[in-house]
Amino acid sequence: MTFTAPSPDGAELRSQHTIAVDEPAGRAIRVGLDVGGTKIDAVAVDRSGDIVGRHRRPTGWGDDAVVDSITQAVAALAAENGLSLASIGSVGVGIPGVVDVETGRVLHAVNLGVESLDLAGRASAALGIPFRIENDVKAAALGAAVLRGATGSMAYLNLGTGVAAGIVLDGRIRRGARGTAGEVGHISVDPNGRLCGCGQRGCIETLCGGGALAKAWGRPGALPVADILDAADAGDPTAIALRADLHHGAAAAVRVLVLSADVETVVIGGGLTALGARLDEGIRAALRTEAEASPFMRSLHLDERIEILATGSPAAAFGAALVGAAVPEKEIVFHG
Amino acid sequence: MTFTAPSPDGAELRSQHTIAVDEPAGRAIRVGLDVGGTKIDAVAVDRSGDIVGRHRRPTGWGDDAVVDSITQAVAALAAENGLSLASIGSVGVGIPGVVDVETGRVLHAVNLGVESLDLAGRASAALGIPFRIENDVKAAALGAAVLRGATGSMAYLNLGTGVAAGIVLDGRIRRGARGTAGEVGHISVDPNGRLCGCGQRGCIETLCGGGALAKAWGRPGALPVADILDAADAGDPTAIALRADLHHGAAAAVRVLVLSADVETVVIGGGLTALGARLDEGIRAALRTEAEASPFMRSLHLDERIEILATGSPAAAFGAALVGAAVPEKEIVFHG
Repeated sequence: MTFTAPSPDGAELRSQHTIAVDEPAGRAIRVGLDVGGTKIDAVAVDRSGDIVGRHRRPTGWGDDAVVDSITQAVAALAAENGLSLASIGSVGVGIPGVVDVETGRVLHAVNLGVESLDLAGRASAALGIPFRIENDVKAAALGAAVLRGATGSMAYLNLGTGVAAGIVLDGRIRRGARGTAGEVGHISVDPNGRLCGCGQRGCIETLCGGGALAKAWGRPGALPVADILDAADAGDPTAIALRADLHHGAAAAVRVLVLSADVETVVIGGGLTALGARLDEGIRAALRTEAEASPFMRSLHLDERIEILATGSPAAAFGAALVGAAVPEKEIVFHG
Repeated sequence: MTFTAPSPDGAELRSQHTIAVDEPAGRAIRVGLDVGGTKIDAVAVDRSGDIVGRHRRPTGWGDDAVVDSITQAVAALAAENGLSLASIGSVGVGIPGVVDVETGRVLHAVNLGVESLDLAGRASAALGIPFRIENDVKAAALGAAVLRGATGSMAYLNLGTGVAAGIVLDGRIRRGARGTAGEVGHISVDPNGRLCGCGQRGCIETLCGGGALAKAWGRPGALPVADILDAADAGDPTAIALRADLHHGAAAAVRVLVLSADVETVVIGGGLTALGARLDEGIRAALRTEAEASPFMRSLHLDERIEILATGSPAAAFGAALVGAAVPEKEIVFHG
């Protein structure tokens, strides 16, 4: 893969096909970490862009534990795959929350117990490897785009606890003027809808976010959205309504992404993809049904333009490795 | 201005600061026409990007009359400003409807009585000047961006009979994968809203499109949206509700554009800008009110990120001139 460093304002990130960032022999491995609320998924990527190792471990909670679990994930990934730390040229981290890409600081990552953390500085100092930090959805969007070999335009719609999208145009993350590109979860599509955590009513996230659905369902269970689908299959009327919300909300997000940014494909990822065909077929059916009355909407063939990421896909961690590999050369300081 | 010809797939169009398309001496004038349902606005732009002439005339209805009114507009613009037809290097046309930019064909321009018209071919043959055709909103978006000196990102939200936006990123029209980038008018924001001409319910266009508002108002009058605002000022409850729809619908379009493409600024143009401060202040107030409950939305400062194009702005015709100036050199055949 060729990684072009971000432009001076850090607004764009491009990836192509061969690693071109010069590194001394032996620094050819790029590590990527997708840091979620419960687990870290780490991959090692070699010079030709192949994933040559993978490791998963639980995420710590709070500043120190987050840094420790990240450095431990890198160390374990290296040890399990016969790689020395000295062979790692960079580590990229995709993490929820607001990320200052330039400084590597993470803000408001509430699910990790982090309010403001110099993640790049601390992790880099601990391991002697340059770190680069990116918002998790944007990193996953880039990873999914490159793994698909996408050369055109793509949105990555993350259906997890919350809902957000990353937009990739011609291999570049579209960050936007103020970092809100792809924040479709907080577009209201129903003035009389449920109250959103953001303060608005009827946001797309209230319809198809795992957190909002669990809250609306209000019954205990480790996998509330799966429980909702099971109960809907069994005829529970509340569950049937919430299932429809899930499918209609995701369909609304797809429509917004196509009618604003007009991406060719919307790839759906995130925790809710564990629902498999019950998610996939439901969203497609909603897109078809909702287009029935509209020749214009039918002409867009939205139901044929979505893809569900396979459960266990390494796209998010792979995308983080791409982010890390884009560290400008001047930032690379060798400690080891 | 530097005009770089579109990339091979015709997907992008870039403009910068000096006209760099080579032309023989005496072919330095670029003409741009904004063709509306009732009138044509034509401008002549010189090599340094200054508007050196302007002419307006009524638009014809049906294929032949549309072609005739366009060629007559070019001829009259030249005659009134002491320009010879031989001094005109290109004509760009912004026109409503579906435009095949590559062939210069216009499809489904229902307000002009055109179903399928080889506009570039016929007008070019009549005058011996190369023509290039673009969708009117996209051309206006480019013109507004260049007139503002925008180097970042901008959306041009056209509030006319219908509602659509053009997105300009770094001086390029974002056309999208299938030409629907910016079609925010047909995003539904209310499942119980009014039926849209497109077949869906609660589309943004049903709230703030001049055609939809006139239909909902249902009373005779040459300027139905102005009538609605007057009646609202006088306390008419139907008019008050429709005025709120207008402001809320435009605010919703602004939110969608920022939360998907995250443009820095939304410039509002189109026929409804004749409403002046009653439109401007109403949209700003709606953006402020609707953000009150949401710290996230407040943090976006949307009310400070909109601009209303001045009535009579030549942005649309100027943008068409930029489109025309991007004719690839190989396409330029000199007849005269």
